[in-house]
Amino acid sequence: MEKVLIAGQWRDANASSSFQASNPGTRELLPAEYPVSNWEDCNEALDSAAAAAVALRGISGARIADFLEAYANDIEANAEAIVDLAHAETAYPKETRLAGGEMPRTTNQLRQAAAAARDGSWALPTIDTSTGIRSVYGAIGPVCVFGPNNFPLAFGSASGGDFAAAIAAGNPVIAKANSSHPGTTRLFAECAQRAAEATGMPAGMVQLIYRTSHEDGERLVSDQRVGATGYTGSRHAGLKLKQAADLAGKPIYLELSSVNPVAVLPGALSERGSEIADEFTGSCLMGTGQFCTNPGLVLLLAGEATDQFISDITAKFAEAPVGTLLSAGVEKSLATNLQVLVDAGAELLVGNSAVDDGRFCYANTLLKVTATQFLADPEIMQTEAFGNSSLLLVADSVDELVQTVASLEGNLTGCIYSDTTGSDDAAYDRIASEMRVKVGRLLNDKMPTGVAVSAAMNHGGPFPATGHPAFTAVGIPGSLLRFGMLQCYDNIRAHRLPEILQDASPNGTVWRSVDGSWTQANI
Amino acid sequence: MEKVLIAGQWRDANASSSFQASNPGTRELLPAEYPVSNWEDCNEALDSAAAAAVALRGISGARIADFLEAYANDIEANAEAIVDLAHAETAYPKETRLAGGEMPRTTNQLRQAAAAARDGSWALPTIDTSTGIRSVYGAIGPVCVFGPNNFPLAFGSASGGDFAAAIAAGNPVIAKANSSHPGTTRLFAECAQRAAEATGMPAGMVQLIYRTSHEDGERLVSDQRVGATGYTGSRHAGLKLKQAADLAGKPIYLELSSVNPVAVLPGALSERGSEIADEFTGSCLMGTGQFCTNPGLVLLLAGEATDQFISDITAKFAEAPVGTLLSAGVEKSLATNLQVLVDAGAELLVGNSAVDDGRFCYANTLLKVTATQFLADPEIMQTEAFGNSSLLLVADSVDELVQTVASLEGNLTGCIYSDTTGSDDAAYDRIASEMRVKVGRLLNDKMPTGVAVSAAMNHGGPFPATGHPAFTAVGIPGSLLRFGMLQCYDNIRAHRLPEILQDASPNGTVWRSVDGSWTQANI
Repeated sequence: MEKVLIAGQWRDANASSSFQASNPGTRELLPAEYPVSNWEDCNEALDSAAAAAVALRGISGARIADFLEAYANDIEANAEAIVDLAHAETAYPKETRLAGGEMPRTTNQLRQAAAAARDGSWALPTIDTSTGIRSVYGAIGPVCVFGPNNFPLAFGSASGGDFAAAIAAGNPVIAKANSSHPGTTRLFAECAQRAAEATGMPAGMVQLIYRTSHEDGERLVSDQRVGATGYTGSRHAGLKLKQAADLAGKPIYLELSSVNPVAVLPGALSERGSEIADEFTGSCLMGTGQFCTNPGLVLLLAGEATDQFISDITAKFAEAPVGTLLSAGVEKSLATNLQVLVDAGAELLVGNSAVDDGRFCYANTLLKVTATQFLADPEIMQTEAFGNSSLLLVADSVDELVQTVASLEGNLTGCIYSDTTGSDDAAYDRIASEMRVKVGRLLNDKMPTGVAVSAAMNHGGPFPATGHPAFTAVGIPGSLLRFGMLQCYDNIRAHRLPEILQDASPNGTVWRSVDGSWTQANI
Repeated sequence: MEKVLIAGQWRDANASSSFQASNPGTRELLPAEYPVSNWEDCNEALDSAAAAAVALRGISGARIADFLEAYANDIEANAEAIVDLAHAETAYPKETRLAGGEMPRTTNQLRQAAAAARDGSWALPTIDTSTGIRSVYGAIGPVCVFGPNNFPLAFGSASGGDFAAAIAAGNPVIAKANSSHPGTTRLFAECAQRAAEATGMPAGMVQLIYRTSHEDGERLVSDQRVGATGYTGSRHAGLKLKQAADLAGKPIYLELSSVNPVAVLPGALSERGSEIADEFTGSCLMGTGQFCTNPGLVLLLAGEATDQFISDITAKFAEAPVGTLLSAGVEKSLATNLQVLVDAGAELLVGNSAVDDGRFCYANTLLKVTATQFLADPEIMQTEAFGNSSLLLVADSVDELVQTVASLEGNLTGCIYSDTTGSDDAAYDRIASEMRVKVGRLLNDKMPTGVAVSAAMNHGGPFPATGHPAFTAVGIPGSLLRFGMLQCYDNIRAHRLPEILQDASPNGTVWRSVDGSWTQANI
């Protein structure tokens, strides 16, 4: 049985059961056994995290940056083992996806988080010299991270975006591994623990458990020792955690579900339909469609160009190799959710069948509905079929497209393709106006699956895409704000202020809002 | 029966019952009758607010600023009538409190909000030129405002901090009047409606209802047409609304309860005990103690200076005139909650008795407990007795004080008085470290009741002081962020970007983060 990492020690779990991950390429269980922790493990992790949070009050952002950088270096030194195990647990291609994609993204993200912690500008220090009031975001307290199945490295519970943001904001992390790749998460936690020891971080800085009962998960996120939680995963499980955390008044940042509407207007299709068909197919089937921002709903206007586009992408989906899915659960959910759409009247264009070749997989699938059908039951029609599938909607008018967008729940992204000569502009304006308030990120002429780690990124959006539309889960420094509490100092004697709020800038680089102007200067 | 303001029209409510406010100075009902609206009123207000939110997408921050400034001017033109009615409904002194205090605070706040809307810096525009990604906070959608009883002007539902912030962020407001001062709120709404018409705002920009059933209130804050809610009031009612809003994934910003611990260390008492006794008495009895930041828990160390301080403030509380309370409900809650503390073992120093002179009022009250008593049941001992009362805690050691602070729930404020020669410094450091993470605003040598409208203010704090520790309800531009959603633009064609994100600054004043540096310049 693998060990949990609690209070700086790898030790046997308090567990009454265990689980194994699967090799998606063979449908077989992998040999390692992981414990399902009892509450005792959670409780000890919470105690240790609370103690770490106290110790962190005396540890500067620069020292936290040292830790994050040492961790990134340690990951690079162990990259081959991590990539090997992640490949075994996810079947993602080693070179193009894991070693060449997620790995540099992960270490880059940790180094950006380190730079943000060292600099301090993320915390929006604000100084009002006339009233003697100064404020800054400070650590919110121990953060629980529940990472998703689809990014074992770059969004892993002990290595990814939520982890990096929580640590850089000055918080210890209790990582709950995703059951699809517990071994990968364990390797990361080993690197993190070594780096924490090497840089003098407190014992409970990074802790790892693999799984708990649902009940203990809800108890964990609502515990008084917790500051906040970051969760990316299924809507059902996320909403249960949200309810528990909300009742206890504990912030929880969730990334739940999103169909990511893509409107492709007739002018764009006439101009470059074949190119867009390639883009769409690539985006929708990349990673076997297992992206939070997978284009799951395509909005089209009836006409010849649209008929040609549908015919093109149907052919491409039929011809494209069928990718491997992450787990039996993903395979089953995909089939189930596609059936929900078919039962609701969606027409099958291609796919929607099991593929029996010894892997977790399902045929590349396209379904089609009319806007009338969609608008008759938008809730059912927005069922997310996570994986290599998409629902095409063909409307008879721009009015119908606008109504369709207005009927959508919150989404992470929304895209509109339009032509370059202006024939789509009137439709664009109407659709974009509705789409703007439904999505966190609005795109033009580009598929949504690339999520750059940019200060201007918003990987977020209105419920149920996330739990709160003011926060982003990707992008530094913005993503750190989720794990800060606003701390105001009123008439505090100068020498007692945190360094970042004293008259002299602590480092000459931090941007502070002084009497309404942003500056890097001393006061 | 007074009329509601819905969709730009003052009209009869759809109501099945009514209520009257009281004159706190006479305990008698005031003549005006206000409707308890049925769901039909809420539903129509939501439809109109949703339409207004759509119209506001095409209205610039500068035009919203025009509205807010016209509104502030209109209030000033009608100040005497507002102050008269507010005095009748609250019994607050006209000159020192209403005309001289809240009124200029209210119009100043509206003008600061106007300046923020015109400038745009509140929205943290962020531009990444290398990736073509740009983001900015935009309007979250219609905002419901439930104002408190204790600030009829400066935190009124249609005039105060939440209102100003929601409007300045680009949202229409549905104001739910506080039942203590429905007439004052109506007068404000009349000014607002005139200003909205004069400046060409959409019909549902400001709407007013007076009261609904609890069930309809919960339905309102969780309605899909709502963007967010601001609520200040009782913990019980607030938590019911929070639960409804949370389940629907709708942000709700609550200001619930706070005992606002004030630690007065022995050195400070030896040095200036008499002065601090005056400060405390003034702060605790001002406005009959009906401040969110009233010092309701005083933390002391056993000793001669503390004995003298307690004796001083007990005498002052006995001698001070008894102020008028806002309502029969406040009077009853105060008596009930003080009894909870007495039943839990608190010793009565002065007060805790009815005062029968034809007003809503209750004797100025001080209770005392030991730290041992407090720590035996911190939950009961933190019962907020809103009004002219405070609980004194006398500890035998700094350890006990630190444990006491560690046992506290989240609070809006925490203060520490220490001496100027350093004898309190060791105790200060330990107490401040614990207190920092329990409160939104930490003070030195100053009572918490002044809440400056400063960019650096945090009128917020961890649950249950508020619903989320990252947001402030007072202070501009910070308070606007509660009513914004993060809107990212990825690869959007330049002419389609909102003005604030185009290369050229729209006004030369807005601060934008461009490639990691804050600047007012064009790109």
